[in-house]
Amino acid sequence: MLPFARVSIIGMGLIGSSLARAVRAHMPTVRLTATDADPAVRERVRDLNLVDDVADSAGAAVVDADLVVLAVPLGAFAAVGAEIAPELASGAVVSDVGSAKQIVIDALGPLMPPGVHLIPAHPVAGTERSGPDAGFPTLFEGRWCILTPPEGADSAAVARLSEFWARVGSRVEVMEPRHHDLVLAVTSHIPHLIAYSIVGTAADLEGVTRGEVIKYSAGGFRDFTRIAASDPTMWRDVFLTNKDAVLEVLGRVSEDIAALQRAIRWGEGDALFQRFSSSRDIRRAIIDAGQDTADPDFGRHH
Amino acid sequence: MLPFARVSIIGMGLIGSSLARAVRAHMPTVRLTATDADPAVRERVRDLNLVDDVADSAGAAVVDADLVVLAVPLGAFAAVGAEIAPELASGAVVSDVGSAKQIVIDALGPLMPPGVHLIPAHPVAGTERSGPDAGFPTLFEGRWCILTPPEGADSAAVARLSEFWARVGSRVEVMEPRHHDLVLAVTSHIPHLIAYSIVGTAADLEGVTRGEVIKYSAGGFRDFTRIAASDPTMWRDVFLTNKDAVLEVLGRVSEDIAALQRAIRWGEGDALFQRFSSSRDIRRAIIDAGQDTADPDFGRHH
Repeated sequence: MLPFARVSIIGMGLIGSSLARAVRAHMPTVRLTATDADPAVRERVRDLNLVDDVADSAGAAVVDADLVVLAVPLGAFAAVGAEIAPELASGAVVSDVGSAKQIVIDALGPLMPPGVHLIPAHPVAGTERSGPDAGFPTLFEGRWCILTPPEGADSAAVARLSEFWARVGSRVEVMEPRHHDLVLAVTSHIPHLIAYSIVGTAADLEGVTRGEVIKYSAGGFRDFTRIAASDPTMWRDVFLTNKDAVLEVLGRVSEDIAALQRAIRWGEGDALFQRFSSSRDIRRAIIDAGQDTADPDFGRHH
Repeated sequence: MLPFARVSIIGMGLIGSSLARAVRAHMPTVRLTATDADPAVRERVRDLNLVDDVADSAGAAVVDADLVVLAVPLGAFAAVGAEIAPELASGAVVSDVGSAKQIVIDALGPLMPPGVHLIPAHPVAGTERSGPDAGFPTLFEGRWCILTPPEGADSAAVARLSEFWARVGSRVEVMEPRHHDLVLAVTSHIPHLIAYSIVGTAADLEGVTRGEVIKYSAGGFRDFTRIAASDPTMWRDVFLTNKDAVLEVLGRVSEDIAALQRAIRWGEGDALFQRFSSSRDIRRAIIDAGQDTADPDFGRHH
């Protein structure tokens, strides 16, 4: 018994198009509808034959859907929410894939008609690529999907959405939205912010040419450029919508960098060694938890 | 005609043992001698049959060598230099693989007997693994090796060392030592320092458990843990010996992070978008320059 029969995906970038492919692979009898604000993306989704119907607007896409998934940048949620609200079927579940979660409840909650269940979700998965051609059906396999139902949410709706994500290969966790936003600030938002920052610093540094930065990037810098190649619109919106948690963690990051800076200035080798020694345990735990490859250098070819 | 006939490698970790394997692969008639301060490593090098002779001390290892390569942490250079100096053959080239270069000239230069050529070198290559089992013969292929000859260095010795590194697959560049130290601070030392710092911050953050950090690391954090799993002794010594350049760049890094922090606090979306948009060009240039894989997510399996 499928958790949903008619699924509508709003936004067909990396995540939306991966979800469409995964639904096709694991729940082939689901009727899939999709749309995208960009006509060229809609055309491409038609050419790739990713869904049953490509609608020309978000409102048209959600009619009759029993699951609607917003896969657009967080800054577009309020507008999309207003557009789809009048068209939503009673009993429908409205969800999303956004990287911040309290904002989804704040932006969409008040717009939802009675009888519609808002259950925000965040599949912790992705690559640095964007657009419908970047998606692939196995993106969610073995990755966590975090559901953040608002207080008083319908437990049957939560269970159906959990089952949906499990069907596409995800491991599902339920979390309080503000706690999600703090945890993901640490494990995702701050790493992206720092990577964007360092790449910008290196590109503009006096005394070192951009050509030198590129040539000698294999010393470590190149790793940061992958994350910093992620979609700038999506990430702008993440930082604007998860401001409090990001600023809180960033304060700690700056303190810790300053402490290392001081240890270097004063030649405190033991403090540096101790700090650097503890990281290997975390790396090992991540590999043991199935969240990264055990191959050296991410399995890059040498 | 081989650039060197008798090569001695002091230190058989990731880099030293990779170099031994690469010499065997590309210059099989070279007589290879190696040693390591750790008796267990020497034993392992014998078992793996990586070289012709395993010497029990650095002094014994360099007798008759026409190329000596120090592949030990930078903090050990002065002691190793003092030990090998009386044993060096006239005309020998003494080099290394250290990540900072002015310090090598300062530490080894005064110890070298007349007729011995000190030509420091830095192959910009590696993985997060350590030890003789982590090495592999293709590590240097397509990677840059930077030579930083001191003023007045013998040009024939520089040419022979260039040829040596070219034979193991490297692209060779000659650079002024202090400029090397600034460039590598940007492309390697600061990325490692920031990665170590962020991993430490995440591990100790109140309100987020270590288990949560591990579970949801696929959001970006896991990338930082790879670099932060690198050898702590090696990296302690890099920061202690390239202090000036690292602190200079770190000052700029902190300023740039503060600017992003401010943009987030004041909701300056356009500034964030503009900053994030420029990184993709650098990523593309690194891939075009053959310094990283074009596969999404470093080619990790999904």
